[in-house]
Amino acid sequence: MDYFSSDFTLGILGGGQLGKMMLYDTRKFDIKTIVLDPSDQAPCALACNKFYQGDLMDFDTVYEFGKKAHVLTFEIEHVNVQALEQLASEGVKVYPDPATLKRIQNKGAQKDFYRQHQIPTADYHKFDTLDSLRDAISQDRIDLPFIWKSTLFGYDGNGVKVVRKDADLNGLPDGECIAEDMIDFKNELAVIVARNPSGEIKTYPVVEMEFHPEANQVEYVICPARIDDAVAEKARALALDVSKKFNHVGLLAVEMFQTHDDEILVNEVAPRPHNSGHYSIEASYTSQFEQHIRAILDLPLGHTDSKVAGIMVNLVGEEGHSGDVHYENIEKIMGIDGVTPHIYGKKQTRPFRKMGHVTIVNEDVSKARKIAEEVKNTIRVISR
Amino acid sequence: MDYFSSDFTLGILGGGQLGKMMLYDTRKFDIKTIVLDPSDQAPCALACNKFYQGDLMDFDTVYEFGKKAHVLTFEIEHVNVQALEQLASEGVKVYPDPATLKRIQNKGAQKDFYRQHQIPTADYHKFDTLDSLRDAISQDRIDLPFIWKSTLFGYDGNGVKVVRKDADLNGLPDGECIAEDMIDFKNELAVIVARNPSGEIKTYPVVEMEFHPEANQVEYVICPARIDDAVAEKARALALDVSKKFNHVGLLAVEMFQTHDDEILVNEVAPRPHNSGHYSIEASYTSQFEQHIRAILDLPLGHTDSKVAGIMVNLVGEEGHSGDVHYENIEKIMGIDGVTPHIYGKKQTRPFRKMGHVTIVNEDVSKARKIAEEVKNTIRVISR
Repeated sequence: MDYFSSDFTLGILGGGQLGKMMLYDTRKFDIKTIVLDPSDQAPCALACNKFYQGDLMDFDTVYEFGKKAHVLTFEIEHVNVQALEQLASEGVKVYPDPATLKRIQNKGAQKDFYRQHQIPTADYHKFDTLDSLRDAISQDRIDLPFIWKSTLFGYDGNGVKVVRKDADLNGLPDGECIAEDMIDFKNELAVIVARNPSGEIKTYPVVEMEFHPEANQVEYVICPARIDDAVAEKARALALDVSKKFNHVGLLAVEMFQTHDDEILVNEVAPRPHNSGHYSIEASYTSQFEQHIRAILDLPLGHTDSKVAGIMVNLVGEEGHSGDVHYENIEKIMGIDGVTPHIYGKKQTRPFRKMGHVTIVNEDVSKARKIAEEVKNTIRVISR
Repeated sequence: MDYFSSDFTLGILGGGQLGKMMLYDTRKFDIKTIVLDPSDQAPCALACNKFYQGDLMDFDTVYEFGKKAHVLTFEIEHVNVQALEQLASEGVKVYPDPATLKRIQNKGAQKDFYRQHQIPTADYHKFDTLDSLRDAISQDRIDLPFIWKSTLFGYDGNGVKVVRKDADLNGLPDGECIAEDMIDFKNELAVIVARNPSGEIKTYPVVEMEFHPEANQVEYVICPARIDDAVAEKARALALDVSKKFNHVGLLAVEMFQTHDDEILVNEVAPRPHNSGHYSIEASYTSQFEQHIRAILDLPLGHTDSKVAGIMVNLVGEEGHSGDVHYENIEKIMGIDGVTPHIYGKKQTRPFRKMGHVTIVNEDVSKARKIAEEVKNTIRVISR
C-alpha cells in the first residue's frame, strides 16, 4: 500500500490532543487523514484532511465514518466497539483490534485477562452492583481499605475511588465494579510498547511518575525512571509480555506499580498514545505518535531510545479560573534551555482541565528535574 | 500580546514546505495562522487556520492579506515588497524587515551591502545589461572564468551560471547582473542566525554542505561541520556580524565559503528558514522553524545546540519521471534507526523537483554519514 502523498486514507476516531499530536506525523509523512469528533472545536479540526463532527458512541456514525478509511484507529477508548467489529468484518483494517479494545474498555475484563494470563496485578473482586459490594464488606469477604473502580468508562481519575470506610461508597454509581487491593507502591512506572501487524515489537524506556508529596497527584513524568537497571529490565519485559498476550497492534501504554519488594504489578493499560509518552516528542528518536502511525500501517518501527532525558509536566487549568484561557508566564519558561510548551488549543480553561503540557529535555536527568520544578512553579493556566 | 489560543493572527506569505514546517510549531503553540499562496495545492493549505489563494507579487493581494494579520512573515523572498512597506507603515509588524528583504532580493544590492560593511565576500562587478558585461570582457576589464548572477529572482541554481568562455553568455537574460570571482573553496558552510526585535541573538552550529564528487551538487548537509573549531568559531562570528549589520529580525541563513587558506567569505543570505537548517527538527533543542516563530513574535529564543549529530538528504524527483509521485523503498529507510523522511505533499514529481528530505540523526556524525549514504542509495522519487 502506498501511504505517502497518495489516496490512502487513515481514519482517526477522536479529535483531542492525542489525535492532534498524531497529525504532526501524518503531516510530516503526507498521509491523508479523516477525523471524527463530537465537537467542532476539537484540536484535530485543523490539520486533518477532512473533519467530521459526530457521536463516537453512535453505531451508524462510527460505521459510516469508518467506511471512508482504509485503516482505522482511535485516540480515545470510548468509541462504539460494535461498529469497529462490523467494519473489521467488512475488511477495514482496525488497529488496535476491537476485541482488545473491548477487553480493555471494561476494567473487570481487563483484570480477568491479567489473572487468566498469569500477569502480575493487584488482587481484586468483581461485583455486579454496588449493593453486592456492600454485602461483601458486611460479610467480611473483602477488607477495607480498597480501591473501588467502575468497570466502565473511567479515566483521568473518574470512576476510581479509595474506599477507607463504608460511607465512602455513598454516592458512587450503582453499576458493575471491582474492589482492588491497595498497593503500597514505591514507584508508579509506565512502559509504552509498540507492535505492528507483522509482529515487530519494541518497548520504550521505563518512565517514572513522580507524585506531589501531599496532593497525591502525578507532577512529573520522568524518562528515564530513576530506578535500578534490573527493575527497569523487569518492567520492560513485563510490558512486552502484556502486549504479546493481548496480541496488540499499535501502541500499548502499560502502567505499573513497583512495590517495596521490587515486584512489578500491572495497574492498567491504554491501547493508544499516552500521557506518559509525551516526553518522546522532544526526547526520543521516534515520538510515540509517529510510532503509533508506523505500527498501525505495518511500517518498520522506529528507534525507541532517547537522545536526551525528558520530563513532562501537565498544564491543567487552575482552580478558581473558568473562561478564555491565558498562559501566564509562558514567555518566562520559554526562555529556559530545553523547555517546550505544547498548547492543545482548548480555548476555555476550567479547573483541572488538561490544557497542554511542557517538556523539559536535558542531557542530565537531575538538571531536567530541577528545571521542571521551576517550570511548574512559574507557568499558570488561568482565565483572562 | 497573548499569542497562545488567542485571536492573535500570524500571516505567512508563501505556502510551500518551509511554511508547512513552520505550521508544525504554530500548531504546537496553538498560534492562529493565515497563509497566502498562488496554488490551492500548496503544502500549507492544510494546518493553517485560513488559507488564501492569490498572487504573492500582486500589491493589492498582499496588502489585503497583510491587513488581516498582526504579525506578517514570509517563507519565500519573491513577494511584493512595496505592499510589505505599506503594511509596515500602517502598523502591521512585518518581520523580517521589508528594507532588508529588498536588499537581499537584489543580488547586486546584497553584494554592495557586504562591500559597504566590510563583510568578506568574493569580489564582483555589477552590470546594467548583458551587453555591458560583454564589453567589459572584450576590454579585459574582467577575467574569465567568473560566476554570472542575475541580480533578480534567482534561486535553486536559477539565475546563476559559470562563465568560462564568451559563448557561455549566449541565451542568458539581458537584465542587470553581476560577474563574481570564482572561489576555489575547501568547504561550503552555513550558519543560521536568529534575532528577535528585543535584540536577543543566537547562532546555530556550523553546517557543512558535502558535494557529490562529480555532479557538483550538494548531497548532504552535515551538522556539525567536520572542520576545525577555530574555523567554526570564525564562521559563527561572521554570521553573527552579518545579521547585526542587517539589523535582521527572524532567521538569517548565511551561506559561506571556507577557502583553502581558511578564510571565510559570505556567499549569500536567505532571510527565512533554510534547507541547511532542516536537520534541526530532529537534531536540535529548538528547530529552526520554532526559532523563526519565537524570533518574529519577540519571544525568548530557544537553545540552538544539538542533541545529536544530524545529516539532511534532499529528496528530489528522479530524471525521466513525471507524474503521480511514488517514494520507492521508503519503508526500507524507515527501518534504519534515526532515519526520518519528510514528505512535503507535492502530488506530482518532476525531474529535480524538491519533494521532501530525509534527516539522519546519530550520536556519532561519522555513523550518521554512513547511514545517509545508504539512505541516498536506497530511496527513489519516481512516478507510479
